[in-house]
Amino acid sequence: MSAPGSLNTRVTSGTSTGNARCLRSGGVRDAARSHDVRRLRDLLRSAVQGDRLPGGQLPGEAELMAQHGLPRAAVREALALLRAEGLIERTQGIGTHAVTHPVSTGITEAHGTSSPAPTSVLNRRTRPRVLDRSVVPLPAVAAERLGAPPGTPCLRLEYVALHEEEPLWLATNYALFPEAEKLRDCPFITDWYALLADAGVEFGASEFVIGAETADPHTAAVLTVPAGAPVLAIEQTIVDVAGRLFDLAFIHTRADRFRIVSRGTRTPTLEELS
Amino acid sequence: MSAPGSLNTRVTSGTSTGNARCLRSGGVRDAARSHDVRRLRDLLRSAVQGDRLPGGQLPGEAELMAQHGLPRAAVREALALLRAEGLIERTQGIGTHAVTHPVSTGITEAHGTSSPAPTSVLNRRTRPRVLDRSVVPLPAVAAERLGAPPGTPCLRLEYVALHEEEPLWLATNYALFPEAEKLRDCPFITDWYALLADAGVEFGASEFVIGAETADPHTAAVLTVPAGAPVLAIEQTIVDVAGRLFDLAFIHTRADRFRIVSRGTRTPTLEELS
Repeated sequence: MSAPGSLNTRVTSGTSTGNARCLRSGGVRDAARSHDVRRLRDLLRSAVQGDRLPGGQLPGEAELMAQHGLPRAAVREALALLRAEGLIERTQGIGTHAVTHPVSTGITEAHGTSSPAPTSVLNRRTRPRVLDRSVVPLPAVAAERLGAPPGTPCLRLEYVALHEEEPLWLATNYALFPEAEKLRDCPFITDWYALLADAGVEFGASEFVIGAETADPHTAAVLTVPAGAPVLAIEQTIVDVAGRLFDLAFIHTRADRFRIVSRGTRTPTLEELS
Repeated sequence: MSAPGSLNTRVTSGTSTGNARCLRSGGVRDAARSHDVRRLRDLLRSAVQGDRLPGGQLPGEAELMAQHGLPRAAVREALALLRAEGLIERTQGIGTHAVTHPVSTGITEAHGTSSPAPTSVLNRRTRPRVLDRSVVPLPAVAAERLGAPPGTPCLRLEYVALHEEEPLWLATNYALFPEAEKLRDCPFITDWYALLADAGVEFGASEFVIGAETADPHTAAVLTVPAGAPVLAIEQTIVDVAGRLFDLAFIHTRADRFRIVSRGTRTPTLEELS
């Protein structure tokens, strides 16, 4: 590694955030401290959520201070933020440990377009608690998304996916006929894609719009999380093999329990290949 | 459409949630009302976030009541939830309109593994506000993720991506050498993938772990959102063309401004083809 050269680059001793301007005033020093806390929180959060802590134990405060070159107050604040999120717990005399075990799911298995891994939660490992399975007039917004007239009869199939008796997500599907008829009458035993298969409903493609929300009191109650807890919000549309939209779903997944893994491989451009 | 047949299916008039059991007691009636509010919120949220309202205007209360077969109180509560999220605003005498214009980005362009669409925000349309660009010892958690020894020098490149002068996301990268040297010295003008290209850093693949968080006060201050606002949290790792990990990034995107679109196409199984 060569010595740093450019004006906006410095080698830091590891005891500050590395922004020289941060030393000029109290306000900017506070900002530096704030960045330190945030970065440490991100790193520890990654270890907790990625299940990469031996025995689920976090290093002690002294070790974290030494590892990250940070004062005790910054370490304590980062730990407090993770505790407030319900991701870690401190036991007097024992230390701090992770209290969450999130499930990671590949995006193609979440789409239902690849076979789920043998150990995947999507491999018939959830059980639905059905909140509603009734034929209703297609609401206006769903009608526009599906390209069908508002008021068309559709099957509203709403369920909570339980994994080891704990809610992982809440999904509200609006399915058009003729698929709706098969989905209405088929036993719903494990997961959505198993239901499609069991009902003999073939599909061609699935689209997600992925965002984040905080749980309103109603969603929170169903997912058994506090109101205001983060949820991954996925709006899914599904087309049949001919490309016709037949299902719209609003899916809210518990952020402390569910993450999606996506991989992209770069294909060299023609220019690069020549 | 045939008449509903199974026990757990009913055709509803559109004036209730369609769950017959909901009529048996006050508590369950409250649950039905709660589901109604939640579902209407999801539908309206979808229209707002999908930019599908003519002129950004929401229908009036009376129209929403008629469209969804819901009492005024339920419609008002759904609208209040969206107002509390800062997605809509009500102007006396004019009506309710959307106040957010989220950007949707294809997941492959977010990975940097496909060329961004001409109008994409990832097509050199953001500008970075660099918070830190300094060589620091690689933190333990990042070291484990990247398979490098803790304390190895790395470039910490942290920036806020601004779009039309508004923060869209905050990213903290930990990049190993030799890539770090090129990234340290190259002008950072638009977006991350433009920087990689400008710096002559080739990469082979990118992985995301996608989750949701609420913004702690530090992250909230940088993203100019209230503390507790939802953020999409993306942990990215990037490998070089030989498959060696050289970058880990923690990315926090404003949920009110940024969503990711992913498509999956189903390939028939061999069994289905035969």
